[in-house]
Amino acid sequence: MGIVVVGTVAFDTVETPFGKGENVLGGSATYFSTSASFFSDVSLVAVVGEDFPEEHLQFLRSREIDLQGLQRLPGKTFHWTGKYGYDLNEAQTLDTQLNVLMDFKPQLPETYCDTDVLFLANIDPELQLEVLDQVKKPRLVACDSMNFWISSKPAALKEVIKRVDIVIINEGEARMLTGEPNLIKAARQIIALGCKRLVVKRGEYGVLMFTSDSVFAAPAYPLEEVFDPTGAGDTFAGGFIGYLANTGDLSEEGIRQALVFGSVMASFNVEDFSLERLKRLEYQEIETRYRSFRQLTTFRDLSTNG
Amino acid sequence: MGIVVVGTVAFDTVETPFGKGENVLGGSATYFSTSASFFSDVSLVAVVGEDFPEEHLQFLRSREIDLQGLQRLPGKTFHWTGKYGYDLNEAQTLDTQLNVLMDFKPQLPETYCDTDVLFLANIDPELQLEVLDQVKKPRLVACDSMNFWISSKPAALKEVIKRVDIVIINEGEARMLTGEPNLIKAARQIIALGCKRLVVKRGEYGVLMFTSDSVFAAPAYPLEEVFDPTGAGDTFAGGFIGYLANTGDLSEEGIRQALVFGSVMASFNVEDFSLERLKRLEYQEIETRYRSFRQLTTFRDLSTNG
Repeated sequence: MGIVVVGTVAFDTVETPFGKGENVLGGSATYFSTSASFFSDVSLVAVVGEDFPEEHLQFLRSREIDLQGLQRLPGKTFHWTGKYGYDLNEAQTLDTQLNVLMDFKPQLPETYCDTDVLFLANIDPELQLEVLDQVKKPRLVACDSMNFWISSKPAALKEVIKRVDIVIINEGEARMLTGEPNLIKAARQIIALGCKRLVVKRGEYGVLMFTSDSVFAAPAYPLEEVFDPTGAGDTFAGGFIGYLANTGDLSEEGIRQALVFGSVMASFNVEDFSLERLKRLEYQEIETRYRSFRQLTTFRDLSTNG
Repeated sequence: MGIVVVGTVAFDTVETPFGKGENVLGGSATYFSTSASFFSDVSLVAVVGEDFPEEHLQFLRSREIDLQGLQRLPGKTFHWTGKYGYDLNEAQTLDTQLNVLMDFKPQLPETYCDTDVLFLANIDPELQLEVLDQVKKPRLVACDSMNFWISSKPAALKEVIKRVDIVIINEGEARMLTGEPNLIKAARQIIALGCKRLVVKRGEYGVLMFTSDSVFAAPAYPLEEVFDPTGAGDTFAGGFIGYLANTGDLSEEGIRQALVFGSVMASFNVEDFSLERLKRLEYQEIETRYRSFRQLTTFRDLSTNG
């Protein structure tokens, strides 16, 4: 199945204790689509300004990402500036220049409306709703969001949650959205809003996935070198949804497997700045790390113990 | 195999957002031995004061814990007062009355010196070394410690680490001991001090276990109600070491399984104040929750996916 992703394409200026990247390629849709492209066809809906260089478009095309839905508007590309301390779990936003993003009205090309899989990356939930109105009969819809929309547009966001299959947010956002400090209770409340499945990202602690009657826990891959966590969440979502779109297996088992592929992709992404690691990633490395995840988490059943 | 545990028996006064327990039974050796007693014979070495009531001794005896090594000294029993906020991961110590603990000189009864398994719960590392000098040929020795000893007696603590098989500490302590913010690097450094295996406790995020050439990650059991995290680490260690002592299986697989039993025991302990949950725990519940841990973490191998 093919995926349509709607989100941002951006320039990032990022500082971590290990270095700095200025005006590097970033944005939720960029990370998502690059990651998903290892598994599935991806079509990207986003906006860039006149300053967006051909080099980056070439890279996205080299990943066979369909760019029909990438609008180019007069003005500058969205620019995010952020910083991470030694605690690489949370970014400190230093500056946000929305630029052309302020005029973004996602318009799906006709052929995109038949998509089987839709990913609504982190943008204004009112725009996410407009996209949902444009797609016909997707088999799977997932969304991300962020603290800014939870506090500024909670009603629209809750409407989005009601209309998607899988919500992917981080731990702090799940607590913020519900006002519930216990994460398990918070998860139950979010599922009660109407989505089928909630994936809670916990940075270096991994991921929890909830349905109304199951929980799955996957650790993050233990890395000795984490250079830049920017885009880890979108890279995770790209691997997760990309693998699902590839297999089409929406059973609990199939979804768990896809989720681990998401964790695998995120673990590569943080090993270098911007999309540098994904640019030089080979598919064989992905499968090797998936096997390492199995080794990392496997323990024997009770019955096999004499 | 039987276990000897050396640590504290205490009165705790604990406040959490969900209630308060005053002068309740606590102490590292108490939690450890109660938890381990579900799997193995346990002998306890600790000290109490004249105020320690027969009722608590009766409880320990009801768990078939050998109390020959429990000294009673003139004065009051060690008393810890602490508080937890909604973030139940870290206790705030409000008061510590060492009382008879100040005069504690662990002296192993003759028959204890032949023990197969020794657990050095969190006490002064110099006392831990004295205990190590008393045991003859244990098959397995594990230890815990805390931030206070890391800063006040680092040399003695490093000597303990060199002489034990398994070190069990929490995430912050691992970073503090090495001065290394990356946990994986910190773990490598601790193993380089001479222990075979390091278990890093991460509270609600579970546990990581390291050897020089492997890592194992186990999540914490997702609980909707956590009343009191006091003793969770010692209850974890008790289940872990207790199960290992029971099976005697020191293979990587055997140790992983035991570690999950530790997580199972800890998950019960936090469901009520003091040792109340362990007091009413049935063995069948332990096995049921072990199976739930498998369901929580299992995902399929790559080769089974077409």
